Amino acid sequence: MKIIPLGGLEQIGMNITAFEYGDSIIVVDCGLAFPEDEMFGIDMVIPDVTYLEENIDKVKGFVITHGHEDHIGALPYILRSVNVPVYATRLTMAIIENKLEEHKQVESTDRHVCTFGQTIELGDFSVEFIKTNHSIVDAAALAITCAAGTVIHTGDFKVDYTPVFGDAIDLARFAELGEQGVLALLCDSTNSEEPGFTESERTVGTAIDRIFEQYSGTRVIIATFASNVDRVQQIVNSACKYGRKVVVEGRSMVNIIETAEPLGCLKIPDNTLVNVDDLKLYPEAKTVIITTGSQGESMAALSRMADGTHKKVTIGPGDTVIFSSDPIPGNEKAITGVINKLLKKGAEVIFQDVHVSGHPKQEDVKLIYTLVRPRFAIPVHGEYRHLKAQAKIAAELGIPSDRVFILRNGDILELDGENARMNGHVQTGGVFVDGFSVGEVGSSVLHDRQKLADEGIVIVSLALYYDEGILAAGPEMTSRGFIYEKLDEVDENKAEAEAALREAVMDCIASTDLSNGQNRNRLRNTIKDCLGSYFWKRIKRRPMILPIILDI
Amino acid sequence: MKIIPLGGLEQIGMNITAFEYGDSIIVVDCGLAFPEDEMFGIDMVIPDVTYLEENIDKVKGFVITHGHEDHIGALPYILRSVNVPVYATRLTMAIIENKLEEHKQVESTDRHVCTFGQTIELGDFSVEFIKTNHSIVDAAALAITCAAGTVIHTGDFKVDYTPVFGDAIDLARFAELGEQGVLALLCDSTNSEEPGFTESERTVGTAIDRIFEQYSGTRVIIATFASNVDRVQQIVNSACKYGRKVVVEGRSMVNIIETAEPLGCLKIPDNTLVNVDDLKLYPEAKTVIITTGSQGESMAALSRMADGTHKKVTIGPGDTVIFSSDPIPGNEKAITGVINKLLKKGAEVIFQDVHVSGHPKQEDVKLIYTLVRPRFAIPVHGEYRHLKAQAKIAAELGIPSDRVFILRNGDILELDGENARMNGHVQTGGVFVDGFSVGEVGSSVLHDRQKLADEGIVIVSLALYYDEGILAAGPEMTSRGFIYEKLDEVDENKAEAEAALREAVMDCIASTDLSNGQNRNRLRNTIKDCLGSYFWKRIKRRPMILPIILDI
Repeated sequence: MKIIPLGGLEQIGMNITAFEYGDSIIVVDCGLAFPEDEMFGIDMVIPDVTYLEENIDKVKGFVITHGHEDHIGALPYILRSVNVPVYATRLTMAIIENKLEEHKQVESTDRHVCTFGQTIELGDFSVEFIKTNHSIVDAAALAITCAAGTVIHTGDFKVDYTPVFGDAIDLARFAELGEQGVLALLCDSTNSEEPGFTESERTVGTAIDRIFEQYSGTRVIIATFASNVDRVQQIVNSACKYGRKVVVEGRSMVNIIETAEPLGCLKIPDNTLVNVDDLKLYPEAKTVIITTGSQGESMAALSRMADGTHKKVTIGPGDTVIFSSDPIPGNEKAITGVINKLLKKGAEVIFQDVHVSGHPKQEDVKLIYTLVRPRFAIPVHGEYRHLKAQAKIAAELGIPSDRVFILRNGDILELDGENARMNGHVQTGGVFVDGFSVGEVGSSVLHDRQKLADEGIVIVSLALYYDEGILAAGPEMTSRGFIYEKLDEVDENKAEAEAALREAVMDCIASTDLSNGQNRNRLRNTIKDCLGSYFWKRIKRRPMILPIILDI
Repeated sequence: MKIIPLGGLEQIGMNITAFEYGDSIIVVDCGLAFPEDEMFGIDMVIPDVTYLEENIDKVKGFVITHGHEDHIGALPYILRSVNVPVYATRLTMAIIENKLEEHKQVESTDRHVCTFGQTIELGDFSVEFIKTNHSIVDAAALAITCAAGTVIHTGDFKVDYTPVFGDAIDLARFAELGEQGVLALLCDSTNSEEPGFTESERTVGTAIDRIFEQYSGTRVIIATFASNVDRVQQIVNSACKYGRKVVVEGRSMVNIIETAEPLGCLKIPDNTLVNVDDLKLYPEAKTVIITTGSQGESMAALSRMADGTHKKVTIGPGDTVIFSSDPIPGNEKAITGVINKLLKKGAEVIFQDVHVSGHPKQEDVKLIYTLVRPRFAIPVHGEYRHLKAQAKIAAELGIPSDRVFILRNGDILELDGENARMNGHVQTGGVFVDGFSVGEVGSSVLHDRQKLADEGIVIVSLALYYDEGILAAGPEMTSRGFIYEKLDEVDENKAEAEAALREAVMDCIASTDLSNGQNRNRLRNTIKDCLGSYFWKRIKRRPMILPIILDI
């Protein structure tokens, strides 16, 4: 059996792992990654699945653990070249179908809704869906069995003994499989640096109740992750308890509610939801607005409210705004910006103790390891520091260090029933999605964008008579994102730069045979050298310098 | 008396406040701000001091509270136009002088070293330096007195009963001034959202001792803020206690030690410091390296060690790396990147509980307010959320809300002995420093850089015969940071775009009188419209399109 992570390790997002045995490959999850700061202009990153494309005849299907973007977001793109059946639980599949619909791919995709406890046969593999808890309903762990043995992939999970919807994680099944013998455990490492247990989602409901009681005289606005259906359920519950009408703002929040309610994952009593336009019909203190934007996303509903650009909701001293979320690393400043704006408008802002994580902390991880008793431990889902932290936990639990594998994307881990070893590497990587363009923006484009962002560009254009190689027009200097902004501005430094440029160009033309298209590069280099050293000497800047030579 | 914050409010950094009475203005601090993410290519931001320049005859001096960049960093730039005497305590002045030396401004600046308890006369003002504690030695609060009364500016401070160097904060003097009557208190708000007390710097020494004991078999590398001389002192103390030699890495760390030691602010026993080149002469477990880079700064010594590009220090399994620092908001991802790299090299990494803040938490703030009993409260040093949090504390302490002022930069707060009111506004703002250029990069340049970073640039150049207005050469399409990267690459989409461009240009030339330089803008707009709509339709992107027309 081969385990080949094609994404998701040593990074946040883009979870996708291939399992291979004989002529069968199954793929667990197919997520996207959000772009890093330095990936200018990129919308999202999807995994390079060359390995799957090259072995397309073996690939039996995608098995999806839950409906978060970092586990399903790349499906519409990847299904174009790897069009195999998709297996997922009910809500997960409903969310996938929404996504496929946007890309007009519902019809062309073979979809199978699975239930917990169900086992599907995929070539040489059988895969069982095991109930877990997470910050989205219908999350599953997978028991993946082939002739070499059983491997458990936890997906993203937490241990919640008192979940809001449905059952607690099926610990008994983990124990049963552990009894039968588990070859390897791929376990969620996100919170493996955090001591203790992750608290139940239900504790958040209690916190929300308390806030509704304390702020009974004001309107309440709660921002949270759209996909957290249980959170929405608890806000609705509190609203009903305290006689508030509920307004839902933000497209993704509306979408998830429209998806989850018909499936029975979310129960909203009649006469609870009201349209935002009808808000004014109710006393402010009898309303609550559930909204997107808890991460300070600039286009989300909460940010527009904070900016005063939301068309329907105006924030004022009568408002209490709750961030029912923790900042995702990298979003701290954006969130603080939104908090500052809300406070300036006079709102009360609550941003502590109204959230719990959806991932297992150290004691939860120990529980799963202890039930499963895997022969090999493979920490997954996290940056290196998180994987390493889980490896430490595995060691504390007595798993010998040569049975703990911290893999990198593309590593091939080979297991028989007894032994495991690293054996080779497949191509992996991130493919940039930029508008409609998939994979066309590469590292040289990004490198240029970085340079343009930091220093701007200076363009020098001139025309030569081709036959004679003498100047017909120019050189003209134009810049964007550089200190001398506009062509038509009078600037003595710019004039000096132009004089230096003209002299260098004239010297080069006089001393170089440019006839019949010869020596164009020499002229280009002259322009780059002259302006490059001029700008560095005068203002310690290195803009991109782009000479354009037209031949007449 | 007028209090006019020229920077530092509703932002992090760039602290500068003017106090005006009659014909006298004094200025407290003159800091810089580090650029925000969207300020592409900007090195730093300094305050707009137009108000000081316009009232230069009144300005009696800069009084500096302590030696951090956000309080002194703009001095070399501002002194060029506002060349007045500078007053500061010993270490603060030494750091300022280092800075002035870099700018060759030592000789041209009138400098006065002040001691705690000393009162200086500046026009209609007298200013007393009061001993405080902070994450840098020699920090001072200021009691600023004029005929209208006494105002206390705390500067950045903490209450440390057991400081590492020098005395505890002079609480008795705060109490005495409180007895005599204080008109207004400008108090540090940085940690006003945090409950409890800020712990003593000395607790960090205990933590470092414990780590040295636990990791007695490995080399220790500690990253911290260069300016925290007390922290360096405690690391040196632990090193001596456990018989380790100390190496100092990172230019700013070396600088501060060379500045602090001759003043007696830092005591390093003989035979403790060794040169990095001599590291190999000692067993690894008998060495400690103090380094910069605790915020993940890409060029700092620790980042170079993590990258494997540091010339003298190679990280391996025998190393324990300590982050003696908290992440400054916005730096989380960079720090995590460094931690991941260090762990991959096999080092042990410790990043919790080896740091304390230099700013007062809620109970410390209450202590100062209670001692000073100000008539008016003016929270300073922080974003709006922090100022607001301190305003809440002031309210809890019984200060009526009409005596609490949350000011914005540029606000003029007028106080007599009895009343306070907002009365007008002066010009303020951030001036961008970009290399040697101060104030030349404005918002339009930054806007262009943003656009270039997100979408790249497409340049279309062509040459026209001036008299006839007919095409001589081109149109040629060149791009940078856009999908079609290189001119010489064969790309069918690019070819299609070029064909569309050529057709539009030809149509325009045929239908427009371009002779004698006419209608150049029409041709430019044709190019922009044609390519703009082509790219949007085909790939949903809007690159910057720059037409360049050369006239022959």
